[in-house]
Amino acid sequence: MSDASWIIVTAEQADAAARAALIAAGCDEAHARAAAAVLVRAEQDGCASHGLFRLPGFVAALKCGKARGDAAPNVTYLAPGVVRIDGRRGLSPFATEVARDEISKLARTNGIAAAAITNVHHFSALWVDIEPLVDAGLGALICTAYVPFVAPSGARQKFFGTNAMAFGFPTEDGGFIFDQASAATARGELQIAARDGLLAPEGAGVGPDGLPTRDPAQILLGAQSPFGGHKGSSIALMVELLAGVLIGQPTSPEAGREEAARGALEDTGPPNGGVLLIAFDPQKFGDAEGWRAHTASFFGELRALPGVRLPGARRKAERARISREGVRLPASLWRQVVAAGRQTP
Amino acid sequence: MSDASWIIVTAEQADAAARAALIAAGCDEAHARAAAAVLVRAEQDGCASHGLFRLPGFVAALKCGKARGDAAPNVTYLAPGVVRIDGRRGLSPFATEVARDEISKLARTNGIAAAAITNVHHFSALWVDIEPLVDAGLGALICTAYVPFVAPSGARQKFFGTNAMAFGFPTEDGGFIFDQASAATARGELQIAARDGLLAPEGAGVGPDGLPTRDPAQILLGAQSPFGGHKGSSIALMVELLAGVLIGQPTSPEAGREEAARGALEDTGPPNGGVLLIAFDPQKFGDAEGWRAHTASFFGELRALPGVRLPGARRKAERARISREGVRLPASLWRQVVAAGRQTP
Repeated sequence: MSDASWIIVTAEQADAAARAALIAAGCDEAHARAAAAVLVRAEQDGCASHGLFRLPGFVAALKCGKARGDAAPNVTYLAPGVVRIDGRRGLSPFATEVARDEISKLARTNGIAAAAITNVHHFSALWVDIEPLVDAGLGALICTAYVPFVAPSGARQKFFGTNAMAFGFPTEDGGFIFDQASAATARGELQIAARDGLLAPEGAGVGPDGLPTRDPAQILLGAQSPFGGHKGSSIALMVELLAGVLIGQPTSPEAGREEAARGALEDTGPPNGGVLLIAFDPQKFGDAEGWRAHTASFFGELRALPGVRLPGARRKAERARISREGVRLPASLWRQVVAAGRQTP
Repeated sequence: MSDASWIIVTAEQADAAARAALIAAGCDEAHARAAAAVLVRAEQDGCASHGLFRLPGFVAALKCGKARGDAAPNVTYLAPGVVRIDGRRGLSPFATEVARDEISKLARTNGIAAAAITNVHHFSALWVDIEPLVDAGLGALICTAYVPFVAPSGARQKFFGTNAMAFGFPTEDGGFIFDQASAATARGELQIAARDGLLAPEGAGVGPDGLPTRDPAQILLGAQSPFGGHKGSSIALMVELLAGVLIGQPTSPEAGREEAARGALEDTGPPNGGVLLIAFDPQKFGDAEGWRAHTASFFGELRALPGVRLPGARRKAERARISREGVRLPASLWRQVVAAGRQTP
């Protein structure tokens, strides 16, 4: 911890620095607050890969002009249970805040509802997007496509995005949420393995020649494998349909071509695209009196299994620890964030 | 094909024989028609494991008295977007027919809707349950829990069911549907491997001692692994919450205990439990004019990838072949079905 290459800051300091950097890059207060909040929440949960590490991506998307930091989301009711939040090229966190407000009302009235969040730049953790809904007693499913990184089952070239999906259900102890990409191995993990000269896990992907390899640099140039073979590939495909086709937004291959037309794929932050959010109210599914106790007994029994690992358990433990100890960041990243905040908008 | 141990019948013959067997076991016309239809549809799609092979399970559930063949489903509107179909201990296919009628109306009005199908005995393929919705231009997601067969991530004992989930989306050429269990290996595949003295695939599960094994008989006694490690385990967990807790129905461990209290687990057909069905109308998600062409271009590009394998492609090919050649069944199974139809109800 005393290593000069690391620094410890409070969540408030991280939030203020992130907001300043976003405002310097052209965000209004609402966008800066919303985007800083999701990045700092990830840091507080011990998920550095979705924390301030993502800030330069948001800043790049703003600076190159493809994303707007002052876009007021436009709300359209498409059906009694469906609302569209057009982010108008803004960053996703602010549009997602608006979506949560809208879908909460619709889900409580209709029992189940969907929000099509369109025309946003998504670059943060999905569990953070649905956690406030789960805290408010709703269940939620959310997914988003990206740019091509994953080969569909049987194919040897990238086509699907990493296509994360998160699902949450309210519990007595802060909610259950899982958030997982459709790729077998996190892209960040491959990048770190390539940097450090390590091998990728068995089955992580293929090189540009379409042949399986454990060289992470080759997989990054080639295609990642979906998790769980053809079954994970199906999940990735479902995400392309829900977050792309269904809501009139680019699928990953389409977003990839749009990005390629702009120049380098990963240098200008997240692409423009959509997010599909579904929320449901367990009070409206026929067991209003019983579901809370049933949930508690189910998880109680599950947690009692020797060795069991539940999604989100590490995050909860990290949140408690980091709230005591502070947010630990690479000093170089912190300097980058602070310097970005000093620039003239 | 001329082997005496196999017989070829028409779909109509298979349907009539299945209906007769179901009626002899106590089904009314509506239950017999609906249940025969889902089993014959699976045969027509080349999926023997969910075809007439399942008929003895339905018959056993009826004969031992836990399932009823004359239960009229009871429809309750729980919210503008949620309907419950209480199957009243009937077989699932008839209640699912009623659920499709109800959810179609709700989804077209609200954009998205859910049906809680409760108190049914589900023992057939999920893709068959949603195909009529997809044919009618709706998207659908369906899932059901079962009895404990799968160990959650990190654990070494069975807890989750095989917990299948199917997703469908309308296309110009008959719809896209995937249907997959949360277990790494189909239980039927392990049973066949055990019968034939073959090894189970690597990573299929653990024995009763909790240690990994490739002995299929030991895995059947122990616990199957979820597909894709902790990510497939998350999907299995989601199914327990949606098809169990949310709709006031037994989770797999609860269903397992109910079955155990009755006697042998797999001898009396499927347990009593719930099915969650969600349907959505792509016309109501903001791209009513464009989504059909977008779907076609997306799948066109996906199918053009060398080597790609799409879920459901084999079923479509089999359906065309079997409609020409007839349904091929083990002669012993056919004799069993025909004999069951001759018994006095």
